[in-house]
Amino acid sequence: MSDQYKFLLTEEDIPKAWYNIQADLGFDLPPLLHPQTMEPTILPPPLFCAALNEQEYSKERWIEIPEPVREIYKLWRPSPLYRARRWEKALDTPAHIYYKYEGVSPPGSHKPNTAVAQAFYAKEAGLKRLSTETGAGQWGSALAFACQLIGLDCKVYMVRVSYHQKPYRRILMENWGATIVPSPSPETPMGQAFLEQDKEHPGSLGIAISEAVFDAGTHDDTNYSLGSVLNHVLMHQTVVGLEAMKQLEMAGEYPDMVIGCIGGGSNFSGFVLPFVRDKIVEGKNTRVIAVEPTACPSLTKGLYAFDYGDAVGAAPIAKMHTLGHTFVPAPIHAGGLRYHGMAPIVCALYDRGIIEAAVVPQRAVFEAGVNFAMSEGIVPAPESAHAVRVAIDEALKCKQSGEKKVIAFNLSGHGHFDLGAYDAYHQSKLEDYEYPEEKVKEAMQHLPKVPMAA
Amino acid sequence: MSDQYKFLLTEEDIPKAWYNIQADLGFDLPPLLHPQTMEPTILPPPLFCAALNEQEYSKERWIEIPEPVREIYKLWRPSPLYRARRWEKALDTPAHIYYKYEGVSPPGSHKPNTAVAQAFYAKEAGLKRLSTETGAGQWGSALAFACQLIGLDCKVYMVRVSYHQKPYRRILMENWGATIVPSPSPETPMGQAFLEQDKEHPGSLGIAISEAVFDAGTHDDTNYSLGSVLNHVLMHQTVVGLEAMKQLEMAGEYPDMVIGCIGGGSNFSGFVLPFVRDKIVEGKNTRVIAVEPTACPSLTKGLYAFDYGDAVGAAPIAKMHTLGHTFVPAPIHAGGLRYHGMAPIVCALYDRGIIEAAVVPQRAVFEAGVNFAMSEGIVPAPESAHAVRVAIDEALKCKQSGEKKVIAFNLSGHGHFDLGAYDAYHQSKLEDYEYPEEKVKEAMQHLPKVPMAA
Repeated sequence: MSDQYKFLLTEEDIPKAWYNIQADLGFDLPPLLHPQTMEPTILPPPLFCAALNEQEYSKERWIEIPEPVREIYKLWRPSPLYRARRWEKALDTPAHIYYKYEGVSPPGSHKPNTAVAQAFYAKEAGLKRLSTETGAGQWGSALAFACQLIGLDCKVYMVRVSYHQKPYRRILMENWGATIVPSPSPETPMGQAFLEQDKEHPGSLGIAISEAVFDAGTHDDTNYSLGSVLNHVLMHQTVVGLEAMKQLEMAGEYPDMVIGCIGGGSNFSGFVLPFVRDKIVEGKNTRVIAVEPTACPSLTKGLYAFDYGDAVGAAPIAKMHTLGHTFVPAPIHAGGLRYHGMAPIVCALYDRGIIEAAVVPQRAVFEAGVNFAMSEGIVPAPESAHAVRVAIDEALKCKQSGEKKVIAFNLSGHGHFDLGAYDAYHQSKLEDYEYPEEKVKEAMQHLPKVPMAA
Repeated sequence: MSDQYKFLLTEEDIPKAWYNIQADLGFDLPPLLHPQTMEPTILPPPLFCAALNEQEYSKERWIEIPEPVREIYKLWRPSPLYRARRWEKALDTPAHIYYKYEGVSPPGSHKPNTAVAQAFYAKEAGLKRLSTETGAGQWGSALAFACQLIGLDCKVYMVRVSYHQKPYRRILMENWGATIVPSPSPETPMGQAFLEQDKEHPGSLGIAISEAVFDAGTHDDTNYSLGSVLNHVLMHQTVVGLEAMKQLEMAGEYPDMVIGCIGGGSNFSGFVLPFVRDKIVEGKNTRVIAVEPTACPSLTKGLYAFDYGDAVGAAPIAKMHTLGHTFVPAPIHAGGLRYHGMAPIVCALYDRGIIEAAVVPQRAVFEAGVNFAMSEGIVPAPESAHAVRVAIDEALKCKQSGEKKVIAFNLSGHGHFDLGAYDAYHQSKLEDYEYPEEKVKEAMQHLPKVPMAA
């Protein structure tokens, strides 16, 4: 057994239930507040179906995965867990390094784990369409894929500059039958307003969210779909960690540390939450490390405060580590990590010292991605390469100390659509961005003033 | 068992030997002829190491796969065999459709099965470098990957127009440490000559081959590496079919037909040759279908004659179905199928009626690729989509006749780097190319005049 490279499970081993950490936290998450009234609220019902709202607040430990969702998971799940034997050798480390590889899904990342579930519940609720926003297209392509398989229409508002500069994910979405429009679009009042200012407005994720939300809010047959941050999204992702736990058992190991990159928190949480449970409930002393970019360090530098979920102050207010909803991160290539806030579950765990965080600059991240590809073949997505970077750093510490630690990380996606960024790295055209202290200070002025009770 | 989607093998199940069909053909392949003397020859020793030359002519049925090669195979092998349950339903066919998916390798195709083996033998022979040519980059990226893992330098001459228009595979090769130059390059006399005519000469596969061969011929520490056509290349690919056979057994089925696309013949042969053995040796009556593009139909329209392996008449002469070595196929997006000739083993089998061939036009191929992605998620490489097309056609015949046939095909790679071609399809910008009768007639004038004896 112990000389294996890959630990594979059968389709029978796909988890039958998602793990809901709210059952084991031992405390309540702070409430979500309405953006206008600032009163405690649920996810806006015109946008989210009842089943997802129920999951958002459930304290059931295990929530059954509907069989049609498991059937679709079978197209790529269980995903492999690799022992990085060649890389360990190249790093000359006594550490054992494992990575869970979510790039095997057709859209190439962990995102469809929740996209398929969300599409399923929307279909069950009698809806016909889902709308969403996408930046570079990772989330949009996962939702397009899910809608096609479940039998829903899918409308994606894609940030215009990405729509034009990164056409590959747009084409991928079209292959799966989705309708993609560059945002701002003439199809919503907010899109029209921006287009009146500038016919070729480059757009932003904030604008695209507003358009997708407006679309769902004004079509009875349409719900809105979000790819990270929310409790139910993180829960859907726990299939990743539950499988990994079983696979590590096959390898006869338990990790000393588990690592994932964080933007909104979904791939990190999906991978680590089952291990966090062991830590809380069974007293394991696993290190749980969230890796964020220096350009957008919400956990390590943000305030743990109530802030809007979106950039324009229209979404509900959540208590989270935030750099301020008006903060615009530098244009790092890991587009999926450019979020001002963080999933409330992740923040609560960080605030209580159950998980820790590491911060890494862009060039060191790409250096790590190339280093990994040299031994393991797979080219990581720039987001995932953040986790790779910290895995290297920890493996090298083991080399120094001679400790044979077990390091496990989530390789959340491949970089096939991000090779332009690798090219920039090879050509020494990548910039490192320091912590943007002044910009964050400015953004902090705009936090919502919520009642003391909250 | 029978409700499974994927049939997975363990690392232990990676074949321990390649299957050499020359042991079972019952006839000798026509000799290779020297391009100048036209005398029977072997693969030019300055370009190919002795181990590969031995494999090229061996009649041993099983040739052991060296353990270090199997170790590298473990990074992605055994590859999955899928039962296309969703697609069968969408096609409303009683047929059972299986596909072997080679896109799981880091370079994204079947090509590393032979690249790793070739790099291994070169290293064993004391060489330091391999040189090769690449068009769109599928083969070049496989060899770059293999050289990095084996520990050889890799020099790739990439057709200049692709180097500039399709940078993603070039970047992939650079990630694996290879040196890529646009061809024609200033580094060889033939490159220099073309550049003198035109400083921005777009290049061609023929020129790139000449440069790579010259490089290997003039560096003692360098061999040349070819990604298809040759007997040993086809043999290295039989891991695909050997695994598939075992996986179909797990599914409790034996295929009524096996299907693969053909350009030089390597993915097709790798997949089908073990089934051809059953047909020759055990009398199975499996249909074995090679699928070629209408733009380059060497099996169905070519002459079975002696012709040069390359475009300029410098490579050895082989007996094969050829459209003439001076024939330049239309610019279809399945770049890997644009070869004037065909692997001698494939030709001999076709000539004897052991295998059959189908011809499909470009638009129908992309239509099939999209149709497949809609159900199975995976976006096929344009080459692989040729096999998908015929799988659909056969599945629909089964729908007509009510027959429950078992169809198995090789999905030799993913289309992540070919989405531009899918975009052209969606925008109705793809052309179909008829059989180019006049161009072939012209090219036939230039076949080498070999002695009658050959």
